[in-house]
Amino acid sequence: MALLFETINKIEHVGEEYNEKARSQMAEQARPAGSLGMLEEAAVRLAGIKQTLNVRLNNKVILTCAGDHGIVEEGVSLFPQEVTPQMVYNFIDGGASINVLGRHAKASVMVADFGVNHDFAPELPIFHKKVRKGTRNFLKEPAMTREEAVLAIEAGIEVVDELCSQSPVDMIATGDMGIGNTSPSTAIIAVYSRIPVARLTGRGTGLDDQGLARKTKVIEAALDKHRPNPEDPLDVLSKVGGFEIAGIAGIVLGSAARAIPVVSDGLISTAGTLIATEMAGAVADYLFMAHQSVECGHQFMLERLGIQPLLNLNLRLGEGTGAALAMEILDAATRVLAEIKTFNEVNIRNAHLS
Amino acid sequence: MALLFETINKIEHVGEEYNEKARSQMAEQARPAGSLGMLEEAAVRLAGIKQTLNVRLNNKVILTCAGDHGIVEEGVSLFPQEVTPQMVYNFIDGGASINVLGRHAKASVMVADFGVNHDFAPELPIFHKKVRKGTRNFLKEPAMTREEAVLAIEAGIEVVDELCSQSPVDMIATGDMGIGNTSPSTAIIAVYSRIPVARLTGRGTGLDDQGLARKTKVIEAALDKHRPNPEDPLDVLSKVGGFEIAGIAGIVLGSAARAIPVVSDGLISTAGTLIATEMAGAVADYLFMAHQSVECGHQFMLERLGIQPLLNLNLRLGEGTGAALAMEILDAATRVLAEIKTFNEVNIRNAHLS
Repeated sequence: MALLFETINKIEHVGEEYNEKARSQMAEQARPAGSLGMLEEAAVRLAGIKQTLNVRLNNKVILTCAGDHGIVEEGVSLFPQEVTPQMVYNFIDGGASINVLGRHAKASVMVADFGVNHDFAPELPIFHKKVRKGTRNFLKEPAMTREEAVLAIEAGIEVVDELCSQSPVDMIATGDMGIGNTSPSTAIIAVYSRIPVARLTGRGTGLDDQGLARKTKVIEAALDKHRPNPEDPLDVLSKVGGFEIAGIAGIVLGSAARAIPVVSDGLISTAGTLIATEMAGAVADYLFMAHQSVECGHQFMLERLGIQPLLNLNLRLGEGTGAALAMEILDAATRVLAEIKTFNEVNIRNAHLS
Repeated sequence: MALLFETINKIEHVGEEYNEKARSQMAEQARPAGSLGMLEEAAVRLAGIKQTLNVRLNNKVILTCAGDHGIVEEGVSLFPQEVTPQMVYNFIDGGASINVLGRHAKASVMVADFGVNHDFAPELPIFHKKVRKGTRNFLKEPAMTREEAVLAIEAGIEVVDELCSQSPVDMIATGDMGIGNTSPSTAIIAVYSRIPVARLTGRGTGLDDQGLARKTKVIEAALDKHRPNPEDPLDVLSKVGGFEIAGIAGIVLGSAARAIPVVSDGLISTAGTLIATEMAGAVADYLFMAHQSVECGHQFMLERLGIQPLLNLNLRLGEGTGAALAMEILDAATRVLAEIKTFNEVNIRNAHLS
């Protein structure tokens, strides 16, 4: 647990100095004050995090985190568990949605296995961080032990460390792959929001009404049985979480500790992000919320985090797809700050032109 | 008026064939059906417009349309009229917001002068389409004559024609520059929505409460005086419109006539777009709404058009800035359609990999 505590202790609030400088610079630009709305807010935050007005997001990495879930035994997902490793191979092969949108955003896509129920050959180019071959069925017993939860979070921190040891990383985005993982994510927000599970539970990959009712009942029963303690994020994570959710929490903590801005994707990524912010509130200073998912639990996660999502495109795919799109908006924000001329500069230039 | 009628007659509804093909292709992709939400809808529409599943948006052009407004005499804007030509020079020089976001979106930015109160040297690289040096003060008399309105619309059509005569254009976005132009735009949506002007009027570049009240009164009084006929878009445009708004209407009509998808920016662009759709309903098949503006009238324009905006980033700048950002989302949509592998392809590849 040493790595986890050490990482949490490294996370510091972002100072106001460059936020202020960014605001002043943009106030002089040749356009109405505040007219670029959320781009300006993002630019201010990025300047604060990066301690410069010339933010460059050259090396962007999307970490798609995979894990399996014992709860699929209860029929909470439309797809069979075998799809998780199948999609991991698809990510490696470059043909999945996140590969396509990652290329579009000029971001590298890398996969981390925190708990897939499959043996991947060690030479495959993924982060091999499997804690266990899937969580336990949390309707019957805790999804993982407290020790396993810590191991998976620390594995996420290690992923960031290993990534940064190769070359400097300017921005990290989280994504997920794991059949059944909307159930643990929904359970987590139910613990924190205290909103009835029925209001929080979505259709995941496409459950029908009957499936949705079953999934809701399963989550309700599990929460009744385990009564996770919201004051203790490790209790919540181990009882009703998932390995990739823990890994995402670790990636978020590790990124914040290194002052790397981190973009959270949809429901599952934000569940991990929520666990991270419950452990270290200052994490929020480094966080960007990519989009508002169709999954109903997501908006309550966003409310708890108090961070407005950049996009709302009715996405419900995961993998990091929303984060890939949001990275482009953030890249635009850095250009707004750095490149738009001031009225002063315009007048000087115009004296030559006209 | 021949060019206007000829153009309107060329605009045809998009056939369903490629929409269907696009839906079928995406249904086979290795991801839950419908999980990419608005990206899928955009991809379907683009496939329909372009009659291919391999849509490429290589040559994207943002047309920033400029004009001045006699109504500024009534104190409806925070900025003086001189800012309009000043910003045109800034666009030419590459230092304005739209240049920055255009570069980000890999789109060319070109300026068209439909009615700026300034003489631009003929050698300047802009579309020289000035109808008159600004509209008349529409509190006192119609903003333009019916003939001037037609001339400005036809000038917009010519811009598209001239643009396409140089090289094929894959997508066109509209933007605006014109001090005072939220007033005519608000007047236009007031005519069509019949919603009280007070609910529709926004702060433009940053009016205070007193300025907002004055602007509202001016628009109300003008509408009372002229009673534009919503059944006759040329009546609306000429009485309370603007030259750049007319130019935008022409660009939208000209683009649709050539089956070029067109991305409308915020309040002013959408005012022009609205005039175009009132003239030829099939235009809507080629239209994408970039974003929902902070300006309160904009949401009612979007409702009338019945097209959901792609972004909601609290923008209120114009120039085409929201459209530039939306172009990237549309580009991502084309990749979603063309590049994501099917479950079938994945299984075949995995047989080799695992």
